Amino acid sequence: MTDDAILFGGTANPALAEAVARELGISLAPCTVERFPDGELSVRLGRSVRRREVFVLQATAPPVNDHLMELLSFADACRRSAAARVIAVVPYFGYARADKREGRREPVTASLVAALMETAGISHVLTVDIHSAQMEGFFRIPMDTLSAVGLLCGALRGRLPEGTTVVSPDAGRVKTASEFAERLGLPLAVLNKHRESGTRTRVTHIVGDVRGRACLIVDDMISTGGTIVESAEALRGAGASGPIVVAATHGLLMGDACRRMAVHGVEEIVLTDSVPVRGAEGPRVRTVTLAPLLAEGIRRAAGEPGTS
Amino acid sequence: MTDDAILFGGTANPALAEAVARELGISLAPCTVERFPDGELSVRLGRSVRRREVFVLQATAPPVNDHLMELLSFADACRRSAAARVIAVVPYFGYARADKREGRREPVTASLVAALMETAGISHVLTVDIHSAQMEGFFRIPMDTLSAVGLLCGALRGRLPEGTTVVSPDAGRVKTASEFAERLGLPLAVLNKHRESGTRTRVTHIVGDVRGRACLIVDDMISTGGTIVESAEALRGAGASGPIVVAATHGLLMGDACRRMAVHGVEEIVLTDSVPVRGAEGPRVRTVTLAPLLAEGIRRAAGEPGTS
Amino acid sequence: MTDDAILFGGTANPALAEAVARELGISLAPCTVERFPDGELSVRLGRSVRRREVFVLQATAPPVNDHLMELLSFADACRRSAAARVIAVVPYFGYARADKREGRREPVTASLVAALMETAGISHVLTVDIHSAQMEGFFRIPMDTLSAVGLLCGALRGRLPEGTTVVSPDAGRVKTASEFAERLGLPLAVLNKHRESGTRTRVTHIVGDVRGRACLIVDDMISTGGTIVESAEALRGAGASGPIVVAATHGLLMGDACRRMAVHGVEEIVLTDSVPVRGAEGPRVRTVTLAPLLAEGIRRAAGEPGTS
Amino acid sequence: MTDDAILFGGTANPALAEAVARELGISLAPCTVERFPDGELSVRLGRSVRRREVFVLQATAPPVNDHLMELLSFADACRRSAAARVIAVVPYFGYARADKREGRREPVTASLVAALMETAGISHVLTVDIHSAQMEGFFRIPMDTLSAVGLLCGALRGRLPEGTTVVSPDAGRVKTASEFAERLGLPLAVLNKHRESGTRTRVTHIVGDVRGRACLIVDDMISTGGTIVESAEALRGAGASGPIVVAATHGLLMGDACRRMAVHGVEEIVLTDSVPVRGAEGPRVRTVTLAPLLAEGIRRAAGEPGTS
Amino acid sequence: MTDDAILFGGTANPALAEAVARELGISLAPCTVERFPDGELSVRLGRSVRRREVFVLQATAPPVNDHLMELLSFADACRRSAAARVIAVVPYFGYARADKREGRREPVTASLVAALMETAGISHVLTVDIHSAQMEGFFRIPMDTLSAVGLLCGALRGRLPEGTTVVSPDAGRVKTASEFAERLGLPLAVLNKHRESGTRTRVTHIVGDVRGRACLIVDDMISTGGTIVESAEALRGAGASGPIVVAATHGLLMGDACRRMAVHGVEEIVLTDSVPVRGAEGPRVRTVTLAPLLAEGIRRAAGEPGTS
Amino acid sequence: MTDDAILFGGTANPALAEAVARELGISLAPCTVERFPDGELSVRLGRSVRRREVFVLQATAPPVNDHLMELLSFADACRRSAAARVIAVVPYFGYARADKREGRREPVTASLVAALMETAGISHVLTVDIHSAQMEGFFRIPMDTLSAVGLLCGALRGRLPEGTTVVSPDAGRVKTASEFAERLGLPLAVLNKHRESGTRTRVTHIVGDVRGRACLIVDDMISTGGTIVESAEALRGAGASGPIVVAATHGLLMGDACRRMAVHGVEEIVLTDSVPVRGAEGPRVRTVTLAPLLAEGIRRAAGEPGTS
Repeated sequence: MTDDAILFGGTANPALAEAVARELGISLAPCTVERFPDGELSVRLGRSVRRREVFVLQATAPPVNDHLMELLSFADACRRSAAARVIAVVPYFGYARADKREGRREPVTASLVAALMETAGISHVLTVDIHSAQMEGFFRIPMDTLSAVGLLCGALRGRLPEGTTVVSPDAGRVKTASEFAERLGLPLAVLNKHRESGTRTRVTHIVGDVRGRACLIVDDMISTGGTIVESAEALRGAGASGPIVVAATHGLLMGDACRRMAVHGVEEIVLTDSVPVRGAEGPRVRTVTLAPLLAEGIRRAAGEPGTS
Repeated sequence: MTDDAILFGGTANPALAEAVARELGISLAPCTVERFPDGELSVRLGRSVRRREVFVLQATAPPVNDHLMELLSFADACRRSAAARVIAVVPYFGYARADKREGRREPVTASLVAALMETAGISHVLTVDIHSAQMEGFFRIPMDTLSAVGLLCGALRGRLPEGTTVVSPDAGRVKTASEFAERLGLPLAVLNKHRESGTRTRVTHIVGDVRGRACLIVDDMISTGGTIVESAEALRGAGASGPIVVAATHGLLMGDACRRMAVHGVEEIVLTDSVPVRGAEGPRVRTVTLAPLLAEGIRRAAGEPGTS
Repeated sequence: MTDDAILFGGTANPALAEAVARELGISLAPCTVERFPDGELSVRLGRSVRRREVFVLQATAPPVNDHLMELLSFADACRRSAAARVIAVVPYFGYARADKREGRREPVTASLVAALMETAGISHVLTVDIHSAQMEGFFRIPMDTLSAVGLLCGALRGRLPEGTTVVSPDAGRVKTASEFAERLGLPLAVLNKHRESGTRTRVTHIVGDVRGRACLIVDDMISTGGTIVESAEALRGAGASGPIVVAATHGLLMGDACRRMAVHGVEEIVLTDSVPVRGAEGPRVRTVTLAPLLAEGIRRAAGEPGTS
Repeated sequence: MTDDAILFGGTANPALAEAVARELGISLAPCTVERFPDGELSVRLGRSVRRREVFVLQATAPPVNDHLMELLSFADACRRSAAARVIAVVPYFGYARADKREGRREPVTASLVAALMETAGISHVLTVDIHSAQMEGFFRIPMDTLSAVGLLCGALRGRLPEGTTVVSPDAGRVKTASEFAERLGLPLAVLNKHRESGTRTRVTHIVGDVRGRACLIVDDMISTGGTIVESAEALRGAGASGPIVVAATHGLLMGDACRRMAVHGVEEIVLTDSVPVRGAEGPRVRTVTLAPLLAEGIRRAAGEPGTS
Repeated sequence: MTDDAILFGGTANPALAEAVARELGISLAPCTVERFPDGELSVRLGRSVRRREVFVLQATAPPVNDHLMELLSFADACRRSAAARVIAVVPYFGYARADKREGRREPVTASLVAALMETAGISHVLTVDIHSAQMEGFFRIPMDTLSAVGLLCGALRGRLPEGTTVVSPDAGRVKTASEFAERLGLPLAVLNKHRESGTRTRVTHIVGDVRGRACLIVDDMISTGGTIVESAEALRGAGASGPIVVAATHGLLMGDACRRMAVHGVEEIVLTDSVPVRGAEGPRVRTVTLAPLLAEGIRRAAGEPGTS
Repeated sequence: MTDDAILFGGTANPALAEAVARELGISLAPCTVERFPDGELSVRLGRSVRRREVFVLQATAPPVNDHLMELLSFADACRRSAAARVIAVVPYFGYARADKREGRREPVTASLVAALMETAGISHVLTVDIHSAQMEGFFRIPMDTLSAVGLLCGALRGRLPEGTTVVSPDAGRVKTASEFAERLGLPLAVLNKHRESGTRTRVTHIVGDVRGRACLIVDDMISTGGTIVESAEALRGAGASGPIVVAATHGLLMGDACRRMAVHGVEEIVLTDSVPVRGAEGPRVRTVTLAPLLAEGIRRAAGEPGTS
């Protein structure tokens, strides 16, 4: 990595920021994020960013509004300090699912967040396995979406039970699940899910045979674990009898998500560290780090020679 | 309709513009669209639009670039003539499928078109059955998407063969197909389609039973008819034996689309007039007009009392 | 109030929103603010806002980032639903003190917040006793700052002990304190405060005589009560011997602010309801409502005849 | 040319793009422009443009709307792929004559096109002999206008008949015609033209003597050849008796322009290759290439040392 | 005029502002323009403009920068005070001639001024006989250009000597001069002028016969009178022998313009009051007021019923 | 200084521009600023600025509107000539005191000026001792404020009479005055000033003892000298008996400011050359140059290695 680029790490995932810096062979630039008694944030950069490419690594993971505001504050500070460009590295992108209105009188919050980022002075966004590919169109600035499927498959390969089927929990994940199936050399099954409200869904069909099979359910993110629980139930109902493993890029694991998944027979969860994974009772949780992937993305975004 | 609002009709679909004006109880405002020998367009408004709400009805149907540029020219003319607001009524929205990049070095043309429309002075967009709901997030201005499903079902009800199944040609259309199925009281089947390139796809699974059934394939648009042909083949392969009917909001019917669909057993196509339907050899084509739907949308967009 | 304007109340201060609506003789428009398990917010408007003036009342009080994001979501929803204008009524404006950098590498968060509000679609801001008058210049849109000094003086008049002096806790509040002194017919004293860090200050001089006097310390806001405690100490040190009363527009009263002020001899605090006042052990807290003031501001912002 | 800059060639004039690349000593960067059956365009860049200066050569010649949309798509693709800057090299700039309204209710299409280009992400425009110098003011970004007069004079010098007069076909071209006259050492005559409608004009006076002279009519562009035909008639009417030669930067030569000019006595036409010149019956057509001029302009726009 | 619209008059031409208000049957809204000892301007509006259409009449006549800054200040004040729209009525538009660069490294000041006006909050511009029609394209907002030719001809009709020829002092004014000639039923002559530097020009040809004729030279503006002086000399040289009258919309009459024109035989000058006309020795100066024209333009810009 | 950066000097302070260039070891880039007879400005750059960092040094000192417009013209010229960035170096920033409205219907002119600068293409501002620190928040672009206190103290050190007290003429200058006091090792006194109108103020209290002391009154700027005169009177009234010295960064010294100050006992004034200091009868005026400070600021803004 050239000396020219600067990497700050926000408070959402300091360990990952450190790991990315190590991958790049640089030190994280010093900065302080103060939180006043009334909850207001104050960011201060610890070194000059004038005319430099500045990367700010900050997942907008829960508490999403605080982490988003912190990222916007970093951007404003960098711009006012005359940074050449501010590239937000957002391993997990909050509000990404709020990408449409469908006739209701509500915001398109993902589009709003994109606009807020541009306003704050962010000039490029780098993220991982974003919920919908249309997200790029919400931005006028470049947005690069990296894929963690390769990393997750690396962690799964050779450790899955015999006779495993890759399961997409709904139609929207078929593309990703197909990639897992292809890379792992396994068959694919698809659950057809019907969203009944903001938080409730119902599985209506299963395409592909899961009878007597172990299942690897793949998803982009696990929030409360509801989708996984429901998928596991549907798979058991359809005769799946082997162990159930879950792979997802983003493991928010809100509340008692782990316990609920364990109750429904999930034995292992493989995640990345896009969000700091909280230890909890429940299934075995294994984590693969995004650090090399993000470091490579940062090198490319910096236009380093030899990258494409 | 109050006297205050003004409706211009572009050249993409003059008959529909006339019909909408009739529904609203107004006359189309006079305008001329000149096309110079070198292909440049020149729009001239035939009446004052100062401080008025101006609606411009123009589908961005093929030739898409000409029709888009004409719409942008109308908007520029209206803005420079001090219109209070310019509401584009776009029954068919070209480039709507170009809504993502997925890692390739290409434009997000749908997002680009949204930005061009805002730049030209359009302050609100009204469209029908847009390809993806995320489109609204590409705009910062209001975009209302009307649904023609009710109109199409009205035209189908009581005219479908006994034992018809509603068929979604791919996972992305399940939501729409479900609505048809529910309104018509018919069962649903879903084809799982895999896109192999920009223009080629392959059906991989069918969810739901179609053996011995007549089929109503529903889609948002028919361009070359490729999706329909491929679906019909898959349905026949799965034992569908009754007549095949197709319903779609937008019937571009490029080239020999009608002939190809006829060859593959499509007996009837039900479309709206979002795009002028070209007479052609092939299956029986029936058209329902969007005029009442658009007129109602215009009334609501104008904030008329009694609308919601 | 004309039927045309619509008032939504955010979750930061629902009681005040109700009171303002009553003053205006209208009902709050229905809306729902959902908070998903992962902390993401979802706003839905319960009625059409097309072509209407929409007022959204939301203090950006703690938790400031959540309340700010909620306000921005309301604005995005209103704009996408074709509101004519969105007027944010922000009784307490968070981050207002973050209005300068003074050479440090940090954001000007108050300016950033102004830009975010404009981006989200807010077209006018109405607030009360903002920390610095320069705030208006951070906006390109109109910002009206109402003064609660009259309301607070009304609540104080006739209830202060004999021989009370109005005290400005620092040079920045002299203008406000002078107004209290003039309205109440009392003498004025000014503490000269030196800010030693983000949260610590020190009183260095007292201008005016407080020996043997009761004191009314006035400020725009009370966060942790640190300024008040420090002022009370300085006043006692200078010989003030009567009761100490405090008047402020915004009473955040974070943590044990009330208890600390009581310990340092504050007997009564008079606040507005710009932020819901939390009951707590400590001095007597009296609250005057901003409802009539905000209602009048809303009527004026709506351009109602008879207002100026 | 430094390795850093990248040059793409659009489909409007691939031969010129190749020639410019050769002049610069680089290869055209690979790209594909797909045209779907419904006429929608899809651009894909064949190599990384991250943090690079990207030049896109595309004349917005007929079909103007298609070529313009292609250029805008290139720009959107480059911006989303994180190009440092996108410089549009537009040898012929369509819609340039639509530069004023003069009281009519119409667009200023040239100004609209400028705004569309900026919106799509173009950061600098390079063109040749634009119709009116005011065009630069329609842009906020830099626009450089190169002059092909030197190249055209080079092609004419020594090949014109004895006793030739340079003729400006109207008052707006006097400046250009004077430059031809001066460079070629020939006398000047000016036709005073009156525009009677969008496509019809009438010559009313001739300033300067053409009796018994050969004539070199110069213009910025030839579309249908109407101006030339009319000028030739007026010149013959005024006694011009030698051969008539025409020189213009942009040769659209729509429809039967060549045949018409031949009929009215034009013997030779000298053009640049800003637009691919279509072979046709009619006068002898000679073409000089803009490649060296554009290559020099690109070098300068890239800020190459040694250029001014 | 409806009660709703408000008209402020800047300091550039208070008499015209008063006259326009009288034409509209309203009073000028009160305002103060203070000029501090250091030359800084301060504008204060004397009445509420909330949600109102606000017209600000201010010529950007010399001292152009002061008058421009005053206009921008008015706009900023109106916007911050929540005016619905700010319509600048600019009878004389300074910097309008700075409309092109022609290859030089300089600003396009007319385009810059347009951008400054939009930034300050002006939403519509109304002007009279602007120097070049392309000016409208420098704006994204509506710009209406009114013509004073009818008013000037009214003042000339019946008062010109027998045998008068209308003279256009250069090719750029032919269109205007033709309109004078047609309205007055007089023949036309055109001087072909060559600009040798920013302030020096030379007449090279005269089209049309002026021998023994009186001349009416028409122009859009008279600054130093240089163009008129030079034209008069050329006309005398070509045998014009009757009196010379001059008609122009904008009479800046800088320095000794009047005396110089008198010396060169100009007997009468007819101007509008777009700029206050300074009494001076020299030819007889007659002034026609723009008040009715501007009042009509204001009524139309306000969208008053019955206007077009 | 690298060869890459270019420095132009405007007409407001050519001597300072020359001095800064010398400090940087470069030559001022050639340019011409023409002023037409009607007062319009025309800027022409004398060398290419393509892809270069361009610094334009121009104080917006009186005549403020002319100097501001000249700066904006420079910026527009630079942008249109494809400068990489335009950094305005504004030693004295006019209109900086117009930074709030306080409820009046007036502009926030300082905020307006910031917006105009951004519109004209300025990408970074560098200034000295700006009136209020909030000014930075009026910009979205970086603004760096340099402090001349060190330079002024250097000029004062060892030359002040024994027993001098540093005096802040009002509460707003306490911070600056404290810095003088600390650097010079002198005690501090503060006048509490009440602004009664735009130009009139009254001293109400003095904090600190001045009896029998010499006084150094410090301020950011001296316009008419009113503040100094009033302060001197108050100090004499409070018993100050030694000589009075004044130090200020910006010495506009309008009208008879020097004479008035002399009359009230000011013996010496120490200023910087942010504004050319006019020789005048009155107290001794000494000037320290900002050249090294600005040169250092320019080096840092250019991101030169070794600067911070």
